[in-house]
Amino acid sequence: MDRTVKLGVVGLGGRGNGLLDTLFCIKNVEIKMICDLYEDRVEKGLEKINSDETRKAWNCTGTTNYHEVIANPEVEAVVVFTSWTSHIEIAVATMKAGKRVAMEVGGATSIENCWKLVHTSEDTGVPCMLLENCCYGRYEMAVLNMIKQGVFGEIIHCEGGYEHDLRDEISCGIENRHYRYDHYRFRNGENYPTHELGPIAKHLNINRGNRMLSLVSMASKSRGLHDWIVRNKGEEDPTAQTVFNQGDVVTTMIKCANGETISLRLDTSLPRPYSRGGRVQGTRGIWMEINNSIYLEGVSPKAHEWEPFDPYFEKYEHPLWVKYQKDGLVGGHDGMDYLVLSAFVESVARQTPPPIDVYDAAAWMCITTLSEQSIALGSAPVAIPDFTDGRWMTREPAQDTIYRLDEIPQVTE
Amino acid sequence: MDRTVKLGVVGLGGRGNGLLDTLFCIKNVEIKMICDLYEDRVEKGLEKINSDETRKAWNCTGTTNYHEVIANPEVEAVVVFTSWTSHIEIAVATMKAGKRVAMEVGGATSIENCWKLVHTSEDTGVPCMLLENCCYGRYEMAVLNMIKQGVFGEIIHCEGGYEHDLRDEISCGIENRHYRYDHYRFRNGENYPTHELGPIAKHLNINRGNRMLSLVSMASKSRGLHDWIVRNKGEEDPTAQTVFNQGDVVTTMIKCANGETISLRLDTSLPRPYSRGGRVQGTRGIWMEINNSIYLEGVSPKAHEWEPFDPYFEKYEHPLWVKYQKDGLVGGHDGMDYLVLSAFVESVARQTPPPIDVYDAAAWMCITTLSEQSIALGSAPVAIPDFTDGRWMTREPAQDTIYRLDEIPQVTE
Repeated sequence: MDRTVKLGVVGLGGRGNGLLDTLFCIKNVEIKMICDLYEDRVEKGLEKINSDETRKAWNCTGTTNYHEVIANPEVEAVVVFTSWTSHIEIAVATMKAGKRVAMEVGGATSIENCWKLVHTSEDTGVPCMLLENCCYGRYEMAVLNMIKQGVFGEIIHCEGGYEHDLRDEISCGIENRHYRYDHYRFRNGENYPTHELGPIAKHLNINRGNRMLSLVSMASKSRGLHDWIVRNKGEEDPTAQTVFNQGDVVTTMIKCANGETISLRLDTSLPRPYSRGGRVQGTRGIWMEINNSIYLEGVSPKAHEWEPFDPYFEKYEHPLWVKYQKDGLVGGHDGMDYLVLSAFVESVARQTPPPIDVYDAAAWMCITTLSEQSIALGSAPVAIPDFTDGRWMTREPAQDTIYRLDEIPQVTE
Repeated sequence: MDRTVKLGVVGLGGRGNGLLDTLFCIKNVEIKMICDLYEDRVEKGLEKINSDETRKAWNCTGTTNYHEVIANPEVEAVVVFTSWTSHIEIAVATMKAGKRVAMEVGGATSIENCWKLVHTSEDTGVPCMLLENCCYGRYEMAVLNMIKQGVFGEIIHCEGGYEHDLRDEISCGIENRHYRYDHYRFRNGENYPTHELGPIAKHLNINRGNRMLSLVSMASKSRGLHDWIVRNKGEEDPTAQTVFNQGDVVTTMIKCANGETISLRLDTSLPRPYSRGGRVQGTRGIWMEINNSIYLEGVSPKAHEWEPFDPYFEKYEHPLWVKYQKDGLVGGHDGMDYLVLSAFVESVARQTPPPIDVYDAAAWMCITTLSEQSIALGSAPVAIPDFTDGRWMTREPAQDTIYRLDEIPQVTE
């Protein structure tokens, strides 16, 4: 097992609180300091940590000032679970202090901040990881495995979405201190691209032999939140007067240097079942998530007919998931959270490059800003920066470096 | 039953030949003249007609010059089943002769030709119908029925596609005298939008209280046809040297005047099962074709969970389909061909406006040209013309005029 890694945790809202539980499951982690802007969240977090004798021995402390976490000599690396707009600021400050950092996902509000993230990592020599858990999804990884083995032929087109009915979370943002409310009120764009784009970027070797060139976004009208609020909070509720700028469905198309297209959908303010809307299409076959099906030319039993995807796990389950299932799944979101956090902890323990690095983070996060720009310009195409400064042409191929989680870290009993 | 309608038929390739059989099923139709550029197809068509005593009595004649069909005094109206680029030319000539015309589907090659179609119809006072059979699809019509009854709430976003593996048809176009080969070799765009866009346009009241404002298209690289040819026709086949300009997957986004977005996919040169990729999404629910499912807030039994769509036919089957199923389905493509041709025949017999009119035809066909333009301009947004010249704001709502097929015409025994 790897040596113990001593972490600081910044951000203890709904998501941070859940990920705290997941961190408890990673045996070689000690949490030395936690932080949130809200005192009550810090207290609740400390209580939770100290409710267990082993964890109490960590002597974890709390603060409402993230700079104290970074400065704490007991803290070796920091994980950032705060609201979207503070990720880059905290990550930059952590790297400047010479400590590794991992950020929860969320889109960027400016291209300049993405460059700042990249340049800080390059200047300090400190890696920064994006905690995109869906890169560790069982389906996403099996499909990646199949792509690397050539099962789909040459990859031509990928799709994905964040299709999740969040009307109550967004609409009740003020009372629940949730940041999404403001983003939906004021902004209009693909505000949460990475759950689908992260896996797709790995599928397409983005930043390692390929890159995203340009995008176009289009937003529908905004009706879902108002409709929900009037029916659920009442016409007299102050939020019934809110005009939300965010369109209900935002579609984004991305063109890649090697000719592939990517289509993304943000769909979070209308009633619907959850989906990440995955689709991978090559010269020899197609996978689709929504009907959990696959068609492989010459392999599928009937021409022009879908077959169920799940039997393909037998042959193409990603090795990481083979091991992981043997050990037993842990933590939230079908085990993805545990895997992505473990990958960060492992990279800290071994001082190896993180599997989702600062170039990935910048390239994926900038999509939000560019999507807003495209919509503001009437769905004009906008260029996607090359954050690798040309090195994408020669960086080692993805299959050797992603998911470098050499073994599943042991789980706390 | 309506009076007998005497038709001329132009175009007897694969599609025309099939639709000839469908026309035979409509009891009040007599075919007086048939036409194709290829003599052998004309002969084959005449043989087929004359193989039956009743049809032989029509005294149908043949020609390779469509002008003779139009000029034939026995011919009251013309149906055009030719290749894409000749539809408008033949339709315009027919209207100028004072005869009604219906065209098979296909995209336009210029905006000017779409205007020509519209202006010819307006100047001559002769209606022109587009034979978009998918407007008569059972699912599309049930969903339309549900939309009109408010089941989905306010409609926000629609999707559809022409997702059909046509690699053999396209690649063997030269030997089979099929026009798709040239289109895929030379053009790059959404070349076949109407199967999905037609029903969506009816769902969204396009040209009747709404209109399409602008679109953006993006094309993937082109690999599927070459890959298929090399493996199926061999590297020595001359077509193995062909460079196809047409991208394998073309995604198009359309913005409507009332704020809805439409997303289209052309996906015809990669291996895959057939799909029209339907999706209709409103403030109260969502329908998706690919998983044949629906979710309606407060109606579906489980929150955030799909339920099968088919049971909804019981309540929401379109009245036309209720009758049609009672009488028994006829003809190709699950009966849609019969219904759309019957609608044209009925509109001729009764001298009523056709259910899919010249404004629909121009608006839907122009998407192909505009998609090519957008792709040529690097996915720039391009404006969609208003072929109604502002009348879309006041034209009567669609529910009263579409699918005006008052009764299912009787079927030949």
